[in-house]
Amino acid sequence: MRGSRRTSSPSNPFDLNAYLARSTATVNRALDRFLPSERTRPTTLHRAMRYPLFAGGKRLRPALCLAAAEACGGRWDEALPLACAVECIHTYSLIHDDLPCMDDDDLRRGQPTCHVKFRTGDDAAGRQRGEAMALLAGDALLTFAFEIAGQCRAWPRYSHRDILLEIARAAGSRQLIAGQVADLEGEGRAVTARELRYIHERKTAALLCCAVRLGGMSANCTPLQLQALTDFGYHVGLAFQVIDDILDVTQSSKTLGKTAGKDVAAQKATYPAIVGLEKSRSIAAQLTNKAFTALRPFRGRAAALDALAQFLLKRDR
Amino acid sequence: MRGSRRTSSPSNPFDLNAYLARSTATVNRALDRFLPSERTRPTTLHRAMRYPLFAGGKRLRPALCLAAAEACGGRWDEALPLACAVECIHTYSLIHDDLPCMDDDDLRRGQPTCHVKFRTGDDAAGRQRGEAMALLAGDALLTFAFEIAGQCRAWPRYSHRDILLEIARAAGSRQLIAGQVADLEGEGRAVTARELRYIHERKTAALLCCAVRLGGMSANCTPLQLQALTDFGYHVGLAFQVIDDILDVTQSSKTLGKTAGKDVAAQKATYPAIVGLEKSRSIAAQLTNKAFTALRPFRGRAAALDALAQFLLKRDR
Repeated sequence: MRGSRRTSSPSNPFDLNAYLARSTATVNRALDRFLPSERTRPTTLHRAMRYPLFAGGKRLRPALCLAAAEACGGRWDEALPLACAVECIHTYSLIHDDLPCMDDDDLRRGQPTCHVKFRTGDDAAGRQRGEAMALLAGDALLTFAFEIAGQCRAWPRYSHRDILLEIARAAGSRQLIAGQVADLEGEGRAVTARELRYIHERKTAALLCCAVRLGGMSANCTPLQLQALTDFGYHVGLAFQVIDDILDVTQSSKTLGKTAGKDVAAQKATYPAIVGLEKSRSIAAQLTNKAFTALRPFRGRAAALDALAQFLLKRDR
Repeated sequence: MRGSRRTSSPSNPFDLNAYLARSTATVNRALDRFLPSERTRPTTLHRAMRYPLFAGGKRLRPALCLAAAEACGGRWDEALPLACAVECIHTYSLIHDDLPCMDDDDLRRGQPTCHVKFRTGDDAAGRQRGEAMALLAGDALLTFAFEIAGQCRAWPRYSHRDILLEIARAAGSRQLIAGQVADLEGEGRAVTARELRYIHERKTAALLCCAVRLGGMSANCTPLQLQALTDFGYHVGLAFQVIDDILDVTQSSKTLGKTAGKDVAAQKATYPAIVGLEKSRSIAAQLTNKAFTALRPFRGRAAALDALAQFLLKRDR
């Protein structure tokens, strides 16, 4: 299962759709293999873990992880446990984020969210059971991420300890969860552009950056390569979130597969609200340019990372 | 920081109170050192992580971990990161267990539970914010457990990968969380003694057993020692939960520092409800005997483990 080596020369343009189809299928098979089956006790819990994990996520973080491994001369199969671990963490954070005490969202990717899907009835008790199951499914996916990560190969430069710390820090109280908290605390009040950057760096860029770094680590990358991947991941991650803000303002719920305009409704701080739409677009473009610059040392090997960054900036959903 | 080496000979009885005071102080200092300070952003989150962690827990799991390390000739300081990791996981599971969608408990150890403490007001929005903060503090403590565990020393017999997998499996969807789910699903219906054992094995014994095994692993224990610790941890853990069930029936809220009789009120399955009080007491005694038998290979070195098991069986709160 060796990754694509095609370059992005004009005569042989990089086929991102084919790449994403292949990486998504590979990641889905791996996740299915890693996770306990729906027949494993407790069956409801394992269904509640698998339901949001296989609800049509775009698998962008795993794709970035695999592409980063490739850029460092590594192989997909060696990056796969880490790509899957990051996707489990991403999914857990969405499940908990959708809970009534957080964003209270009923729809995600056009489907009922986990706590809605696992209600046992429409009364208070039935809704409560749905929330409990979603809470525990999120906890279990977070825990499982570490179990899957433990399946990866250790390298001379990167031990299992390095991998473990990389994931725990990106997902922890000073990164991913710090972003969630700052986001919550920013609701309904004026947030500065600086505060908003703090939120987006943590809520989104931290895990994207972690995905890319883990891909490099799975390929035993050099310290210089790891630094380049860090720069790339940070800037793509931040751009990704700025674009998410923009799409929330400009697109319909149907296109997004989730409730549009809800950032505005929740009085959440967004780039368009603070710096305006055009300035937001220009910031996203600048961040992506910085990401492209970070890829230079990889030359042709980073074709997939390059194409993914283009895709993240040009997406309309 | 070398652990006690006193034996339990009649002329020199093991002083468990002194041992627990010393191990608790050592663990508290280590947790304080490992965890981000309350001044670290986001400050509310770090306060919400520290509040339940320093709310007067008995630190039984860390004590078991340290005592297991001693029993295998190891040192407290090398077991400490793992003892602290287990305590973080225990605390996270209590925070989430107390949430309104789970057991909906306002009191824990005589203090307001995390989601009550971190309410920003008595209205729906204030209560929701308390729940969100407790949810995220739990998530962060679970994640942090892995970061702390990464601080431990690796040994020839036990790598960081082994440690990581040990924790992830004990805390995961087939052990700790499986117990929570089975417990929820057993509410309000007849549960068999077999089902109840499944719940208690996972909800309580899994993490206690993990604490003891990690202690042994931190001391580079032999496979035979690890097996003995596993037997010990499993039986002590199961006995511990049976006694918890018994105390819920027989003790007042004031003595327990939490709402007494709430297992009965919630129609939760308990040993006294299924097999009666006397039979429950005899089961607890049998389990503890099995635990003591498991300690034989350690001889005098297991004085602390032995005393802890006695304490767990004889406690009245």
